[in-house]
Amino acid sequence: MKELSQAILNSKKSKIRKLFDMLLKSGSDAISFGIGQPDFTSPDYMNDAIIKALREHKTQYAPARGIPQLREIIAYKFKNENNMSWVKPENTIVTNGGSQALQLAYAVLTNPGDEMILSSPAFLSYYHLADYYGIKCVEVPAKNNYSPDIEGIKNAITPKTKFILINSPSNPTGYAFSKEEMDAIVALVLEHDLYLVSDEVYEKFYFDGMTHISPASYEGMKDRTITLNALSKTFGATGLRLGYIAASEEIIINMEKYIQYTTAGVNHPVQYGAIEGLKHVDRMNIPEIIEEYDRKRQFCVRRLKEMKFIVDMPKGAFYIMPKLNPEWGMDGDEFSNALVQEQKVACVPGSGFGSYSNDSLRISYATSDEKLEEGFNRIEKFLRNRNFL
Amino acid sequence: MKELSQAILNSKKSKIRKLFDMLLKSGSDAISFGIGQPDFTSPDYMNDAIIKALREHKTQYAPARGIPQLREIIAYKFKNENNMSWVKPENTIVTNGGSQALQLAYAVLTNPGDEMILSSPAFLSYYHLADYYGIKCVEVPAKNNYSPDIEGIKNAITPKTKFILINSPSNPTGYAFSKEEMDAIVALVLEHDLYLVSDEVYEKFYFDGMTHISPASYEGMKDRTITLNALSKTFGATGLRLGYIAASEEIIINMEKYIQYTTAGVNHPVQYGAIEGLKHVDRMNIPEIIEEYDRKRQFCVRRLKEMKFIVDMPKGAFYIMPKLNPEWGMDGDEFSNALVQEQKVACVPGSGFGSYSNDSLRISYATSDEKLEEGFNRIEKFLRNRNFL
Repeated sequence: MKELSQAILNSKKSKIRKLFDMLLKSGSDAISFGIGQPDFTSPDYMNDAIIKALREHKTQYAPARGIPQLREIIAYKFKNENNMSWVKPENTIVTNGGSQALQLAYAVLTNPGDEMILSSPAFLSYYHLADYYGIKCVEVPAKNNYSPDIEGIKNAITPKTKFILINSPSNPTGYAFSKEEMDAIVALVLEHDLYLVSDEVYEKFYFDGMTHISPASYEGMKDRTITLNALSKTFGATGLRLGYIAASEEIIINMEKYIQYTTAGVNHPVQYGAIEGLKHVDRMNIPEIIEEYDRKRQFCVRRLKEMKFIVDMPKGAFYIMPKLNPEWGMDGDEFSNALVQEQKVACVPGSGFGSYSNDSLRISYATSDEKLEEGFNRIEKFLRNRNFL
Repeated sequence: MKELSQAILNSKKSKIRKLFDMLLKSGSDAISFGIGQPDFTSPDYMNDAIIKALREHKTQYAPARGIPQLREIIAYKFKNENNMSWVKPENTIVTNGGSQALQLAYAVLTNPGDEMILSSPAFLSYYHLADYYGIKCVEVPAKNNYSPDIEGIKNAITPKTKFILINSPSNPTGYAFSKEEMDAIVALVLEHDLYLVSDEVYEKFYFDGMTHISPASYEGMKDRTITLNALSKTFGATGLRLGYIAASEEIIINMEKYIQYTTAGVNHPVQYGAIEGLKHVDRMNIPEIIEEYDRKRQFCVRRLKEMKFIVDMPKGAFYIMPKLNPEWGMDGDEFSNALVQEQKVACVPGSGFGSYSNDSLRISYATSDEKLEEGFNRIEKFLRNRNFL
């Protein structure tokens, strides 16, 4: 038999999903801090709009870019929530989740041999998409508190660099850019004639009064930025697979072509749900959700510090990425494997997010207080069993 | 600004969608023979299952391969309806429509520089996907009645050939392979150590008692064939975007990785609809639909012959692809453009389907009898205005 795609053969199954599979086998008392989804599901007011569309048999092809009413709401959202005053419906496109939005960015921006830069650790797809599109992903290790190393990013730019990819707040670290950091990234993009891909799916989840900054709201950035977002995290709708993009019209036109020939658009009825969702995002009571996540965040930091992990307070999203105490002499892969086997607690090893983070674990704390408490107790037991505490 | 993806910049917006846009502008009395979707929408028994899943808040991530219950039904379907006795749930994966199923085949089978072969004319995405994956699409012109030129396909095979792509019944021609033709294609695949991608989305639409043949049911073909299908055509559910694949487990595992990093799976609630749909496909009354399509097909052939088009009786699907009379001195692009402007009737020019078919039009006759009649009357007027009749 002839050989299959090398790029795909070489790519690994996600460590998150693998962990999830292991956990499934380990019985009902397993605790997952693994999967990156909120602990709530999509609200009835959104689901009802999908149901209405189904009852009205809106089940034939939608336009490849998404239905016009949805694209209008998306444009309105970017203008009003993200200060991107330039966005018109022509600057938007609807995608099969944030994942396809990302794929479209890689597909449309790059030619084989190009380079991209990101601050590592970062979301797993960022790396694999680089392989799939035949481009080089240049990882610049983040600083100790997971803030981006701006100087390092600057030094990584070559004539082949096509774009910088940012994700603030970040999966897996929970770090969020300061205004100064965003200013510096934007300045690099402008100075070196680059594009900027800004993955903003966690934009609603900030702590301590920090607010979201969209780089596409900066002067001179409207034609250089691809802004990605999705219903998934804001609305607890990871399984509805609806994402969206703002970018220059030229980029959108080319994304539309790619969508036509690769997925032929997004589930039609769900687009009616997205309209209602985005129109009435206030009904989600985000401040309440954040208050709860904040409590969980504080709890995690306290418990992790008690157990001698090395950890900073995350600024956003619902992840925390503690570093293992070097005295333990274990790396993230070993720790994660042993922990799931001995204590049935799943945390993703940091190696799942890049080349410089196998000294850490990612914990998704969007779960019940009971599970958090029990999970951390088991981690403590795990450490005590080894006389690490 | 740095250059975007050459492959995508070079690809054109679908002529079908372009035509559709033109038609939208031309007012309410326009008639479209353009879009490839049935004239019925997804049935309530299927929609109700999606609604139930939404009410039960099944709106978080589904497994990247699709939910296990759906994959069981898909395996059962391939075994029972397509004689593919080897198919187990591990040999199946759920996709974002038939389009993503196709994309996955290209993604997983090929490395840049590979070649593939198809009988031209063929569905537009087949060509563009070749560009996107950096492979060469070798078009072998079909014979006059749109049957595949087996000798031509054989001669087109080189050491770089990775797969042959077939689509029987065919969009755009309505041709369907005879048993002898399928035997011959399978023999070529086996003899030359190739893969076969079989796009079977029109499998339910055959006339004159012909029945569908799945090449993956042949001896020796289970590891060499990627069989694609979708809800779209059988269930009038083009807008639900649910497709599925049967292939070797190795291929499925690699497709799963690609899906994880590019779209992260398919809309979760719609998968419950797919279960009900596939389980009770008998409720679709396909024989009745075919009877109706048969009538429309006969009508089209009669009218087209009266108007001196060159046309064969299609064997399946709901398309007919008449050739223009050479005496008219017009090619398909000119004809299609003038027809939509003068008579507000949209037929896709044959050039939309490959390099050898700009002497033809594609007519999708899955529309009401009234529209068919009126549309053909307008075509007749169009020809009379030019003294072609």
